[in-house]
Amino acid sequence: MVKVNEHYLKLKAGYLFPEIGRRVKAYSESHPDIKVIRLGIGDVTRPLVPAVIEAFHQGVDDMANGETFHGYGPEQGYEWLAKVVIDKAYKPLGVELKASEVFISDGSKCDTSNILDIFGLDNRVAICDPVYPVYNDTNVMLGRTGEVDARGYYSGLVYLPCVAENNFTPAFPEEPVDLIYLCYPNNPTGTVASREQLQGWVDYALANDAVILFDAAYEAFITEPDIPHSIYEIPGARKCAIEFRSFSKTAGFTGVRCGLTVIPEELTAKTASGERIKLNALWNRRQTTKFNGVSFPVQKAAAAVYSDEGWAQVQGVIDYYMENARIIREGLGQAGITCFGGVSAPYIWLKTPQGMASWDFFDKLLNECHVVGTPGSGFGPSGEGYFRLSAFGGRENVQEAVKRICGKWGK
Amino acid sequence: MVKVNEHYLKLKAGYLFPEIGRRVKAYSESHPDIKVIRLGIGDVTRPLVPAVIEAFHQGVDDMANGETFHGYGPEQGYEWLAKVVIDKAYKPLGVELKASEVFISDGSKCDTSNILDIFGLDNRVAICDPVYPVYNDTNVMLGRTGEVDARGYYSGLVYLPCVAENNFTPAFPEEPVDLIYLCYPNNPTGTVASREQLQGWVDYALANDAVILFDAAYEAFITEPDIPHSIYEIPGARKCAIEFRSFSKTAGFTGVRCGLTVIPEELTAKTASGERIKLNALWNRRQTTKFNGVSFPVQKAAAAVYSDEGWAQVQGVIDYYMENARIIREGLGQAGITCFGGVSAPYIWLKTPQGMASWDFFDKLLNECHVVGTPGSGFGPSGEGYFRLSAFGGRENVQEAVKRICGKWGK
Repeated sequence: MVKVNEHYLKLKAGYLFPEIGRRVKAYSESHPDIKVIRLGIGDVTRPLVPAVIEAFHQGVDDMANGETFHGYGPEQGYEWLAKVVIDKAYKPLGVELKASEVFISDGSKCDTSNILDIFGLDNRVAICDPVYPVYNDTNVMLGRTGEVDARGYYSGLVYLPCVAENNFTPAFPEEPVDLIYLCYPNNPTGTVASREQLQGWVDYALANDAVILFDAAYEAFITEPDIPHSIYEIPGARKCAIEFRSFSKTAGFTGVRCGLTVIPEELTAKTASGERIKLNALWNRRQTTKFNGVSFPVQKAAAAVYSDEGWAQVQGVIDYYMENARIIREGLGQAGITCFGGVSAPYIWLKTPQGMASWDFFDKLLNECHVVGTPGSGFGPSGEGYFRLSAFGGRENVQEAVKRICGKWGK
Repeated sequence: MVKVNEHYLKLKAGYLFPEIGRRVKAYSESHPDIKVIRLGIGDVTRPLVPAVIEAFHQGVDDMANGETFHGYGPEQGYEWLAKVVIDKAYKPLGVELKASEVFISDGSKCDTSNILDIFGLDNRVAICDPVYPVYNDTNVMLGRTGEVDARGYYSGLVYLPCVAENNFTPAFPEEPVDLIYLCYPNNPTGTVASREQLQGWVDYALANDAVILFDAAYEAFITEPDIPHSIYEIPGARKCAIEFRSFSKTAGFTGVRCGLTVIPEELTAKTASGERIKLNALWNRRQTTKFNGVSFPVQKAAAAVYSDEGWAQVQGVIDYYMENARIIREGLGQAGITCFGGVSAPYIWLKTPQGMASWDFFDKLLNECHVVGTPGSGFGPSGEGYFRLSAFGGRENVQEAVKRICGKWGK
């Protein structure tokens, strides 16, 4: 008798973004004449930059010719791409990495999910609240939790609330944990962590023999000079942290699919008998067994992101989005809506007007302003009463959305 | 104290193909003047066909323009690609599918691994022996087995030997099992399953409330008219089978990455309390949570495989490989080497000359003929004494390899 993985049945409703998509689709279908502005899901809208398009085409052309055709590539990604990332994205930060420490993948959503494969089920896991739902849900699906309670917390996970009252800075767990997800610049709150705050987490991890799962998907959006772009800028991090990076937001690759995971050689975890095992070797085994590498033309396109020309063009797009962020942040702020984030991150995290519940505000915003955002409570119980707007829209849409929102809820 | 997933430590040595790569690299580096012919890993060598290249370029061009740019696509793949597959690959077989039953992915290696996520750990699993190592190793990594024994079997899995003596047709398990991996046309043996044999498995699965995981990655290579291309050609299969398909071998996508998984709406599995849950819904939850869809230009390229022009071109490449298979099969056969498969599959499974152990023959073939194949024992204990040659080489290389092998071991 074939049995399902019953842990899946503990999951609440649908995954957040499909649920938003469902509501927006229903609204649009019943109001075909109304133009809905989407600042909900954190999806980019600007096209790929010319240098990336050119390299992508060249990669496709290579596949048209027996001499330059590429079949299976290394499951870890091509070394030339790893080296470009090391030279252009890490060396300028003073971070030295080996190519064998960089694993190219089809995106951070997969990597931050799949990384759990190499850890024992008996690890105690801490996540921030609110948080990118994938961290929570993948732990539930794996069986690391019990049922969800009335507030939305799953037993067995340690939640670290991040709210205005603590300046969105999570406190260290009251009980020791083994795995800690950190995402900076943060999704959904748009806030950042200072060097001192990250040093605190590294010190905590080293003292507690824990591993930090550091999601740096938004590092390219940092505008403040003293904010670290990588956890490896922090002394000691090579011994306690895995870092995830993505081309999705940095270079508009949400529909192209490329990311990477860094696992330093020094990073180890224990067996029950106390032996220390290299996590780099385990992840390598995981990827070579369960993954077959990233599309060759995609890797060519990704490498072009870090060419001089490509990076200048990509930076132009990032500046465009960050100007959107400024328009939202300042526009809503001037209208009396309390906003956080949006300075070194493409997300604005606002307090819902009149203390409305997040989903109520979502429905009101959709029905009355025809603007789609993301309900804060979709990211966790401490997101209740907050709402996320993304800066990834087109300029006119962003301006129009701000106008509509301020017209309706501005003081 | 952070703990590793200790099940990984039960795995033997490296994954098969990296180990082959290591030995070939070492040999090539110490013999830089010798031309090594690679018929080992089942990787294609012919370039993508023109219709696919054209569509791939168009897909890239779409990403260059704000009007036609694509960000996140559906995690399940674009419906237009699912519909093309249904119309062109399934309808002609008399198989009706809904778009919601087809999940586009980045390849069958990922899908045949990840599918285990939705099943309980307490299912009893049967795999053929020899077998594509991924089926075995992913079950070990998940913790479904104990340690490996001296023969190479992991306790807790049910192995179904496929050897010349039983015509490579596995017997039904002696004890009931819940999940059964079947791969037809078979990798590594190159043999096929008749309609009657597949009906036998479907009847077995229905009688035992089991699910068949049917890997049809090589269906495009079937040349015999009566051999089913899909498990869904068999009455009853919609209630008991998941099918995996791949563009990798069909259309040379090993370096491009696209595949698909079919889960019919009728297919269910039980909870401990006896409730039946739709596997389609669970897989949908898995994919929406842990995966972010396939690269848009890649999906465009994949759709072009099934255009009239594309399919004619792809069929030309398949014919080319199958002529290679004939050359290997007949050449070695005439020289007195016993060969199986290679008629409706791109693999020839041969008995090693003089009863040599598989890895000994691998090393001898590499050192003395400078030809790379795959040791049968790498696919499981019952593969010992066998050896796999792939028909995916260039014509001249294949002819030269056959000449070298026959010159050395022909009678």
